[in-house]
Amino acid sequence: MKFGTFRHAGRTLVGVVDSAAERIHPVDAIDMVDLIRRFDEISPGIHLNGSGMNLSEVELLAPIPHPRRNIFCVGKNYRDHAREFASSGYEAGAVKGAEIDDYPAVFTKPATCVVGPGATVDTHPKVTSAVDYEVELTIVIGKGGRDIARADAFDHIWGYTIINDVTARDRQKNHRQWFLGKSLDTFCPMGPWITTADEVDAENLQVRTWVNGELRQDANTRDLIFDIPGLIETISAGTTLEPGDLIATGTPAGVGLGFSPPKFLKPGDNVTMSITGLGTLSNPFA
Amino acid sequence: MKFGTFRHAGRTLVGVVDSAAERIHPVDAIDMVDLIRRFDEISPGIHLNGSGMNLSEVELLAPIPHPRRNIFCVGKNYRDHAREFASSGYEAGAVKGAEIDDYPAVFTKPATCVVGPGATVDTHPKVTSAVDYEVELTIVIGKGGRDIARADAFDHIWGYTIINDVTARDRQKNHRQWFLGKSLDTFCPMGPWITTADEVDAENLQVRTWVNGELRQDANTRDLIFDIPGLIETISAGTTLEPGDLIATGTPAGVGLGFSPPKFLKPGDNVTMSITGLGTLSNPFA
Repeated sequence: MKFGTFRHAGRTLVGVVDSAAERIHPVDAIDMVDLIRRFDEISPGIHLNGSGMNLSEVELLAPIPHPRRNIFCVGKNYRDHAREFASSGYEAGAVKGAEIDDYPAVFTKPATCVVGPGATVDTHPKVTSAVDYEVELTIVIGKGGRDIARADAFDHIWGYTIINDVTARDRQKNHRQWFLGKSLDTFCPMGPWITTADEVDAENLQVRTWVNGELRQDANTRDLIFDIPGLIETISAGTTLEPGDLIATGTPAGVGLGFSPPKFLKPGDNVTMSITGLGTLSNPFA
Repeated sequence: MKFGTFRHAGRTLVGVVDSAAERIHPVDAIDMVDLIRRFDEISPGIHLNGSGMNLSEVELLAPIPHPRRNIFCVGKNYRDHAREFASSGYEAGAVKGAEIDDYPAVFTKPATCVVGPGATVDTHPKVTSAVDYEVELTIVIGKGGRDIARADAFDHIWGYTIINDVTARDRQKNHRQWFLGKSLDTFCPMGPWITTADEVDAENLQVRTWVNGELRQDANTRDLIFDIPGLIETISAGTTLEPGDLIATGTPAGVGLGFSPPKFLKPGDNVTMSITGLGTLSNPFA
């Protein structure tokens, strides 16, 4: 099933999406994290044939508009992207021949920079002149836990969504730790909805980005350097994961810094991302 | 004034601390962030001579036990510490002669690893064998805002507290981005309370750590490389700061990795930190 958060008639609701019929049907949950926590209790009452609205009549928000803590993000997790990043001049301390790390780089984006499908992303011209896109398969944690073993990792995943890990490359480079380059307001488009794990073969998904209709990123999640069970094992080692936590798994090659000269985003651009089975996330930049 | 969060008779309350009399008097706020947001409205009704309890009768919690997003943390912000870190072997990509960065390194700690004064910190022996302490003057944001200029920065500070930025040095090094080494459950002791900005000369505070009674860190905030107004200007550039946000300003020399061999923490150790006018934060490690 697919679940989205949306506004309709002045209210914010959670609904189940019938993507074939292009309709969304409200479900009885306070918000998406409440749905995730009580899914076993709520799910028997969910039907695609109930009352609902056309998707065109509602405003889809990010599926988790206000995450309860920062979003966990993985860097340099596709080989071709690790190489394009190291050779771009935007990776602080890049070493030729050591583009692939032995351990995953994990950083965060503030919960407060999340925006939904269609929302305008601010290019922050006073702060950066190197705004870039990064499509990322994003894990939504269902059952929380700590010290989760590889073999159990998929039991903790409730679903998947798309995040555009928008990045100010100049700030990412200058400050060495990546957080400040990743944290600008509106820099985390998310959506269009969450697809539950039972519908997704997460290790074989095509991940794509188009900028103004031009295909820029086109890769498959089977090429992740640090795979999904490994990421959950690593991040949960000593750190309790909670229902609704989000883990963005890294972006493939084809980001703007990989071109010579770099193709950074400018006001008026439109960035569209899709991942097999997870829908399409499209945002204008201003 | 000094404000703490505490448990008494099964309830969690916010109170004003009379540190001379060693008493705490409840104030009429839902929690510390509510007090910060409504301080102008609430503060005329706050008196040190109201009903109250002896500090020894209550359990002090972290002053903000559940921050609404991750804690902003600054790295390498005292010269002597930047040098000890670079020469320790625990800084990934350290370059001799370039120990002092041109821009501040900013990362986060998850809101969920906060614990209070006296709470036990887990050394996580299955995850790390290099647990270290870092005393840090921590800014508590009062009035939120974005693109805050240096000249206006102090207007946005409500108060100050102490954070022990506990760090797993092996994870910090291996993963290059520091987040995973900083994020283990219980790795953020905070307190003992928040002292309001009017009582604090933040740029001239003595910052100290003792491990099992042995003085290890002893420095003054006048030696910050990136000063407080500059940090607020940098972090708020494009990123909206909110009431109750916490910015840990970095640690001085004297951490465990600076010794040869390193003096990492082990179960049974006790770490005590003090900052002029902000009180004492003491935690056992297990």
